[in-house]
Amino acid sequence: MTETTEKIYTHRYLLTAAQCNAQSELAPAMLVQHIIEVATEHADDLGVGFKQLEADGNLWVLSRIALEMKRYPRLLEDYSLSTWVESYNRHFSQRNFEIRGDRDEVIGYARTIWVAINMKTRRPASLEHFDFLAGLVCDKECPIAPPGKIRAIEPPQMCHPYRFQVSDIDVNRHVNSSRYVELIINQMDLDTYDTFYVSRFEIEFRHEAHFANDVEVCSAFSNDGKALVSTINRGTDQICLARTITLPRSPSN
Amino acid sequence: MTETTEKIYTHRYLLTAAQCNAQSELAPAMLVQHIIEVATEHADDLGVGFKQLEADGNLWVLSRIALEMKRYPRLLEDYSLSTWVESYNRHFSQRNFEIRGDRDEVIGYARTIWVAINMKTRRPASLEHFDFLAGLVCDKECPIAPPGKIRAIEPPQMCHPYRFQVSDIDVNRHVNSSRYVELIINQMDLDTYDTFYVSRFEIEFRHEAHFANDVEVCSAFSNDGKALVSTINRGTDQICLARTITLPRSPSN
Repeated sequence: MTETTEKIYTHRYLLTAAQCNAQSELAPAMLVQHIIEVATEHADDLGVGFKQLEADGNLWVLSRIALEMKRYPRLLEDYSLSTWVESYNRHFSQRNFEIRGDRDEVIGYARTIWVAINMKTRRPASLEHFDFLAGLVCDKECPIAPPGKIRAIEPPQMCHPYRFQVSDIDVNRHVNSSRYVELIINQMDLDTYDTFYVSRFEIEFRHEAHFANDVEVCSAFSNDGKALVSTINRGTDQICLARTITLPRSPSN
Repeated sequence: MTETTEKIYTHRYLLTAAQCNAQSELAPAMLVQHIIEVATEHADDLGVGFKQLEADGNLWVLSRIALEMKRYPRLLEDYSLSTWVESYNRHFSQRNFEIRGDRDEVIGYARTIWVAINMKTRRPASLEHFDFLAGLVCDKECPIAPPGKIRAIEPPQMCHPYRFQVSDIDVNRHVNSSRYVELIINQMDLDTYDTFYVSRFEIEFRHEAHFANDVEVCSAFSNDGKALVSTINRGTDQICLARTITLPRSPSN
């Protein structure tokens, strides 16, 4: 179910058992998939979707995500993602999200940055055709810090090799963004995720990866032990960088 | 959106870009996830869901699937899964599915076998409390062959090692059934799936696998070259066996 109230677009979901993770919740990677889905739907609605950009030989690329959750949607919970455009300029657009659980309780927020690039050159494209976006900018509050600069920690404390498979590739013929999130979450074991939950997650996408690419997923805890910093590397290319902050679970999350 | 017309339960879906595979279609593994989701919903509706079985200390376990597709749902296509109970006895239930695309075109069928087991002993449980199921059996046609006996081909022609990760574990704390389908599909490369599509897929689930289990995914083509037979092995245990039949793609699929 979807609805648009002027500048804010909402998509409602129900978390079925088949979609749950081992903690009977929506997994962070699935939340990222929903963020991309809802952003795409709203952009289509506003007339700045993939089809409109394609007409100019351009496409949207997701550059960064930062999300913060008090808790994740639970088994059989009705939840929703609402999205709005916070700002845009000639080259990129900032789009925010509010995640609500049952009884409309706000359970989290996300910030994303989308860049328009030329399909052939893969260089930044101009959004100046879409001046009407200025009228669609919304000043709804998104009370979480924007994505910050992430620096890899050397040397990493753990590294896992992985080769991208058929099931990792999306409709754009590159690796699915939410799959990177899974690979990073998979750096920790099941006991860890039974005891802690991901309270803040940031990811910066730097390069596209493709079928059969060999990568290493490398992680290390920050000096203060508060964040796990991860990189997915293909040789010397950093495909993406992420910072994961976990907190102990309590009965309310 | 869901609806129930007497004995047949229907769940309607829209295939968004975020849910597509590299061929801009619903992936076979995602179809299997939907099959499980829709079966669960219908069983809940009928009063023979996980909650009712749990009251007796039992649960449903998916034992076999056979599916045949003329084509898979495509990007932005409205499609639906309808399900009904073909038969049941004291120990298991046969549940079928019809998959329809846009304009209600029938694009495929599936057959599944579900077994009730005792949660503690993991031995077959009795469904005799659920006699009313006899009145819910439906004689709607499912014109595909039932799942047959699958025999591993020795020696396999390809083997890939895999260790199950956090993202592979489902709400029941074992490996997600649809993840096995992905691992089997991943035995082939992207070019193969650009040229061929999975016209028939059968899988038999024999053992549960858990977090951090090390397995080998092994496959070999049958003597006539028509089917790829795959097993996922944990030591000498066969976790599951599958038979995949692919056909060259044509403009209609």
